Amino acid sequence: MESDPPTRIMVAVNQSTIKGYPHASISSRGAFDWTLRKIVRSNTAGFKLLFLHVQVPDEDGFDDMDSIYASPEDFKSLKHKERARGLHLLEYFVNRCHEKGVACEAWIRKGDPKEVICLEVKRVQPDLLVVGSRGLGPFQRVFVGTVSEFCAKHAECPVITIKRSENEAPQDPVDD
Amino acid sequence: MESDPPTRIMVAVNQSTIKGYPHASISSRGAFDWTLRKIVRSNTAGFKLLFLHVQVPDEDGFDDMDSIYASPEDFKSLKHKERARGLHLLEYFVNRCHEKGVACEAWIRKGDPKEVICLEVKRVQPDLLVVGSRGLGPFQRVFVGTVSEFCAKHAECPVITIKRSENEAPQDPVDD
Repeated sequence: MESDPPTRIMVAVNQSTIKGYPHASISSRGAFDWTLRKIVRSNTAGFKLLFLHVQVPDEDGFDDMDSIYASPEDFKSLKHKERARGLHLLEYFVNRCHEKGVACEAWIRKGDPKEVICLEVKRVQPDLLVVGSRGLGPFQRVFVGTVSEFCAKHAECPVITIKRSENEAPQDPVDD
Repeated sequence: MESDPPTRIMVAVNQSTIKGYPHASISSRGAFDWTLRKIVRSNTAGFKLLFLHVQVPDEDGFDDMDSIYASPEDFKSLKHKERARGLHLLEYFVNRCHEKGVACEAWIRKGDPKEVICLEVKRVQPDLLVVGSRGLGPFQRVFVGTVSEFCAKHAECPVITIKRSENEAPQDPVDD
């Protein structure tokens, strides 16, 4: 049976919104850990993980709110920093897969995460999409929107949403 | 790693609504097949499947629309038939697991499927809930309601919805 091609699981990952914390968000690490622990388990040859990081120019530039842009060079260096941050994020997931011996691929796209994730699902046709979610209540959701809800509805493949566990939520639950 | 307890996947299954077709619905067979093919794969020791069938008295009694009930005995025999149908349904899934060598459990509950599935998730605490869906459009959904949407929102565990593939849809897509 393991001669079947591996099950391709796309995992949407993003950066933490917590200032000064240049890492994967709590919910994307949670979704990734859950996938390894509950789905892949010891069957490392049976799965391939596809990490998609969608960069939102606004969100990824929050560290630069106090910067002054005086020349085209300043924007170039900003773009360079953004790119470095995205690569750093993907490196974390690719390294962890490598340690486990699970095949993977990772790439970056720009745009609105929920739209881009669904477009990439259409293009790449994974067997399954895993997205983390902050597990916000209905009141908070109205204001922040949720990528996971949109994907569960619109992505052209089965979707698992992994909610952040309550004991992992940061002080402000909208952070991640 | 495989010394971890197996991943417990609850699969909600129901009967076909197609008259004279006393089998598992197309979408619940699809959800089950997908789970075996894409998640369990060759790692049969890593998973345990938990089949829950929720009987809706109305739905399961459709064959008896033309029956005449003249005595308490008639109802007893109806209940007996309902029970037999439920057992027959579960037998299909348990047999297939047995053939594959995947551990499983199966049980029947009565009530409103969406409510009962969420209550059973709370009680049994599976790692994952898999539900099939007819993949109806928004217009059809208004009239038939969908168990999968409710569970994806309210079940206290991650949920995968497996949509019925279009080439498997019966003449009337509300049937299953």
